Amino acid sequence: MNMKRIAAEYAVQYIEDGMKVGLGTGSTAYWAIQRIGERVKEGLSIQAVATSKVSERQAIELGIPIIPFRELDSLDVTIDGADEVNSDLDLIKGGGGALLREKIVAHHSKRLIIVADERKLVQTLGQFPLPVEIVPFALEWTLNALQRLDCRTQLRTDEEQLFVTDNGNYIVDCNFGSIELPFKLHNEILGIPGVVDNGLFIGRADLVVIAHYDGIVEVLKRK
Amino acid sequence: MNMKRIAAEYAVQYIEDGMKVGLGTGSTAYWAIQRIGERVKEGLSIQAVATSKVSERQAIELGIPIIPFRELDSLDVTIDGADEVNSDLDLIKGGGGALLREKIVAHHSKRLIIVADERKLVQTLGQFPLPVEIVPFALEWTLNALQRLDCRTQLRTDEEQLFVTDNGNYIVDCNFGSIELPFKLHNEILGIPGVVDNGLFIGRADLVVIAHYDGIVEVLKRK
Repeated sequence: MNMKRIAAEYAVQYIEDGMKVGLGTGSTAYWAIQRIGERVKEGLSIQAVATSKVSERQAIELGIPIIPFRELDSLDVTIDGADEVNSDLDLIKGGGGALLREKIVAHHSKRLIIVADERKLVQTLGQFPLPVEIVPFALEWTLNALQRLDCRTQLRTDEEQLFVTDNGNYIVDCNFGSIELPFKLHNEILGIPGVVDNGLFIGRADLVVIAHYDGIVEVLKRK
Repeated sequence: MNMKRIAAEYAVQYIEDGMKVGLGTGSTAYWAIQRIGERVKEGLSIQAVATSKVSERQAIELGIPIIPFRELDSLDVTIDGADEVNSDLDLIKGGGGALLREKIVAHHSKRLIIVADERKLVQTLGQFPLPVEIVPFALEWTLNALQRLDCRTQLRTDEEQLFVTDNGNYIVDCNFGSIELPFKLHNEILGIPGVVDNGLFIGRADLVVIAHYDGIVEVLKRK
């Protein structure tokens, strides 16, 4: 039984006719997009934007109408994955390097639904290194400023070259070990000039669907 | 009598032998760099970084040693201009489009000295449109989010093309009219995904040297 698929299909129930939908990226978002494609074939009428080229291609192949961002001013719902989720529905995202695009889409969605398998559910965020997008200019200074927040930093590479985001920036993976105060840390990181954004999504997810391997789908709702 | 020059030369007194110095950009910073060049010829030994190519060229022509950013980890003092200053020493900068570079240099300076003529000194910030650097992706959404903070927005152009920063981003000039709570606004703007940084410099300037046209140099110090 593919639990990621079951959880993703559960989340897709929240999509209704006429909605503007954000399509996430990753192995659980993949199954959500597959299910949305089936529903579009069955007659569901939606408009969609995608957080990555990969998801955009998948959607187009399935016949899901992809609309340029500039033609929409907001979204009704976005379904996406996460790298870590805690019980407050705070998230770490951006393991795939598209955190800024994912955050822009989430910010402009009335509702954000996260689908993840049980390994992503944690007591305290921070075991997963927090991705931080930084501009290339004076990057050593920005790395120093991040390290002063008490983390180990690793500039992300891709086949021995520095990984470059869609926005022409770099990603620093910041290993905090344990993030006790995610909102405070989020603001401290944003306050460093040279930082474009970071993978902490605080207070953004409305619903988290967790796929457990014993066959249970757990749903966490924002209170 | 050139008051900008007199004020700039006053500020340069704070530079001492052995210091690592940030060189600003603009018509008052120009005079500061000229004076630093004179002092270097007289034997002052410093290392400098510049916030723009223009200032870097000026410095090199004057014999001021310019060091790559990666070879320094911080600066002792930066002398720069501003587009607006209030009596709390909060600033709007970035009229020239280099706000991010200027903010990175200011952030890593132990001391930031601002030189400006009296027209820049205001009761309340915001008459000067606040420059905000944004990523090109989904820029219409970012513009909408900025407008919801109650400003008129104007994407900056340069000879009928969109102005592109050194970091490959765009500048939105945000006309707030009056910014009553600059620190709050600063954080609200940084909280919009798609925003890289903005021209509010809050709590960063240690000393502001104001050139009045009646011949007085006014010095405002952080309490």
